[in-house]
Amino acid sequence: MKAYEERSKEELLALKAELEAAYEEFKGKGLKLDMSRGKPGVSQLDMGMPLLDTLNSSSDMKTMDGVDVRNYGSLEGITEAKHLMADMMGVDPENVIVCGNASLTIMFDSVCRSFTHGVLGNTPWYKLDKVKFLCPVPGYDRHFAITKHFGIEMINVPMTPQGPDMDLVERLVSEDEAVKGIWCVPKYSNPQGYSYSDETVRRFAALKPAAKDFRIYWDNAYAIHHLYEDRQDEILDILSECEKAGNPDMVYEFCSTSKVSFSGAGIAAVATSKANMEDIRKSLAIQTIGYNKVNQLQHARYFKDYNGLKAHMKKHADLMRPKFETVLNILDEELEGLGVGTWTKPNGGYFISFDSLEGCAKAIVAKCKEAGMVLTGAGATFPYGIDPHDSNIRIAPSFPTPEEMAQATRLFALCVKLVSIDKLLEEK
Amino acid sequence: MKAYEERSKEELLALKAELEAAYEEFKGKGLKLDMSRGKPGVSQLDMGMPLLDTLNSSSDMKTMDGVDVRNYGSLEGITEAKHLMADMMGVDPENVIVCGNASLTIMFDSVCRSFTHGVLGNTPWYKLDKVKFLCPVPGYDRHFAITKHFGIEMINVPMTPQGPDMDLVERLVSEDEAVKGIWCVPKYSNPQGYSYSDETVRRFAALKPAAKDFRIYWDNAYAIHHLYEDRQDEILDILSECEKAGNPDMVYEFCSTSKVSFSGAGIAAVATSKANMEDIRKSLAIQTIGYNKVNQLQHARYFKDYNGLKAHMKKHADLMRPKFETVLNILDEELEGLGVGTWTKPNGGYFISFDSLEGCAKAIVAKCKEAGMVLTGAGATFPYGIDPHDSNIRIAPSFPTPEEMAQATRLFALCVKLVSIDKLLEEK
Repeated sequence: MKAYEERSKEELLALKAELEAAYEEFKGKGLKLDMSRGKPGVSQLDMGMPLLDTLNSSSDMKTMDGVDVRNYGSLEGITEAKHLMADMMGVDPENVIVCGNASLTIMFDSVCRSFTHGVLGNTPWYKLDKVKFLCPVPGYDRHFAITKHFGIEMINVPMTPQGPDMDLVERLVSEDEAVKGIWCVPKYSNPQGYSYSDETVRRFAALKPAAKDFRIYWDNAYAIHHLYEDRQDEILDILSECEKAGNPDMVYEFCSTSKVSFSGAGIAAVATSKANMEDIRKSLAIQTIGYNKVNQLQHARYFKDYNGLKAHMKKHADLMRPKFETVLNILDEELEGLGVGTWTKPNGGYFISFDSLEGCAKAIVAKCKEAGMVLTGAGATFPYGIDPHDSNIRIAPSFPTPEEMAQATRLFALCVKLVSIDKLLEEK
Repeated sequence: MKAYEERSKEELLALKAELEAAYEEFKGKGLKLDMSRGKPGVSQLDMGMPLLDTLNSSSDMKTMDGVDVRNYGSLEGITEAKHLMADMMGVDPENVIVCGNASLTIMFDSVCRSFTHGVLGNTPWYKLDKVKFLCPVPGYDRHFAITKHFGIEMINVPMTPQGPDMDLVERLVSEDEAVKGIWCVPKYSNPQGYSYSDETVRRFAALKPAAKDFRIYWDNAYAIHHLYEDRQDEILDILSECEKAGNPDMVYEFCSTSKVSFSGAGIAAVATSKANMEDIRKSLAIQTIGYNKVNQLQHARYFKDYNGLKAHMKKHADLMRPKFETVLNILDEELEGLGVGTWTKPNGGYFISFDSLEGCAKAIVAKCKEAGMVLTGAGATFPYGIDPHDSNIRIAPSFPTPEEMAQATRLFALCVKLVSIDKLLEEK
């Protein structure tokens, strides 16, 4: 197809009229499509239902080491849940604390604890004039919301298909003592679906931070969320890489079963060094007598181990793949060669990232909304909600059915075309 | 019986020799008794098992208003769980936020949020030179641990059978802007089992705090935890009393099902004014996408409403009553009239509070431990672990069986006698 930019004003105007008619038709359908969040769809949630048969009134409620999960205690989680979450992250169970239903809450608590009490004996952040976090962009809006909430200055670091721009990360981390952290989604990143290369992970592990309390916030949210059997990204284990590089305490790794079992009722965990665990435990012992161990036992008994998780996630891939492929096929079909945008083609995770022509993202999202389709707000993938190029849009194919996704993507492509034409016409 | 104080030195020495022989016999038994915490016993946890049959793989997972509890969302909890927890506290469901498995965590988060972000637009506490909390004593060690964790100065306020010394509370709260809160267990208090009188609750509601961000931390942990059908304490609803008194925002009320369903896997809630809810929601929306709603639904479907809770707690009382009565009968039998201690006789809750002769509590607890019986550490019922009179001991009869409780109380009484004799001999 001929790129829009190469078309004449007249051609574009004629095309615009045609597309506007199609858009009006879409509007007439009274659509209600939600592609705003990485929410699992109903079929995926249904897949988790046998979990609820794992425990009943005649179940043995003791863990493998004899703990009654119904009572108080086990601050760090039960042994079998530690094993399960360790399997998911590829780390040693001894480095794992299993918490409640959300890794987001563990991340919030980690930043909050650093603010109120400091990291491993270092000055609490509330006493410092300035605290900064590096934010690979585009990234996850809820990460940025946490650092914003605590008044932490966020610095954009561009993403590449191999991970964040490591030259910039290395420079900022080693030069500035105020830089205390970096938000990472190392595997099937949110929203691009990129996975960090071995070199990137090793450069992370070898960082020489100016701040002793610098930590990598390694949100391994999509560790086992592949789309294909034959194309699976794998990343190096950051914990052991940090240890090898002489930086054993430099990372907190987070994960959860939110997109494995139930997104509202899974279990979440943090993996880190023994010294960091001891540091976390001091606050944790004040905050709780223990997390929900019945839910931990239920998960451990249902999934059993890594093989159980893998088998389950194969079915998960079977549900997600058609949704992703629908989006990607229609984007190819509708937009390939038009020069109005680029998009990622991930092997896993929950999102596809779309980059429009500069200055078009907000208008595209607004145009979709007018026709009944909610996308993640343009700008949301950047700190403070400000996308300097106003071009990134996150597409979340998980919630709608493949049929709805097809309709949604046609509408999306249409809006991209219309907004791009307007932009190009302005320039002509 | 003749009080020890009135006995001669010779009489005491003879008695001591006799009691020491009995103590050696106890030591020979190799006992392992735990009366340290308010942990439910196994029979009580067994009582909650049908809860696990409430949901299974063929259950309808939607709430009464159509929310899929398996997915993300519902930051404030599902409607039926709000109703259930509102019933438990005797408040309006619209004033309730249902959270995770522990009210302790909600309390921690409330103090933490005040520290990092302030209360309803007031200065965050980390920016203040001094923050103080009033602590009715004896009280709950985990409350004191939270305020200590945030460097908050704790001021002892004596408890009476009608609640805290309100003359002192009124004076301190109205005179000192640094006083930002007070820890209360208003019903079947921990550890005395006292319930606040109507006058006490009204005086609380009518407080005129110097600090705009002063809040009453009303931990209604034992709201429905009666021991008797015919002797039940009831307290006024603090939320409506505060509203009537023109102080609608002055209280956070907390409760949970930790001692109703499972202590590690119940649901917990906070009740407060609309303005406070809005304030809490701002942080909550950063901290989580929603708490475990599957567990909320399970609880709401199982207990249904106040009548369901009441029926369940009648069975709970049937389990707890014999334990309490065993302790009280043996204390009467062994210690009545000896002038070596006083103890409370609560109508509900989880504890009996014992006051020994001044300076004896630590020694009694140590002596019990030597013979295989763990009590809550002496001093734990006071801020900083310092009981100025070294006399208060918390007895937690919930975990052992009645038979174990009998043995434990005999041993306890024996240790009280031995330590008291030593003290009296020193003085003779």
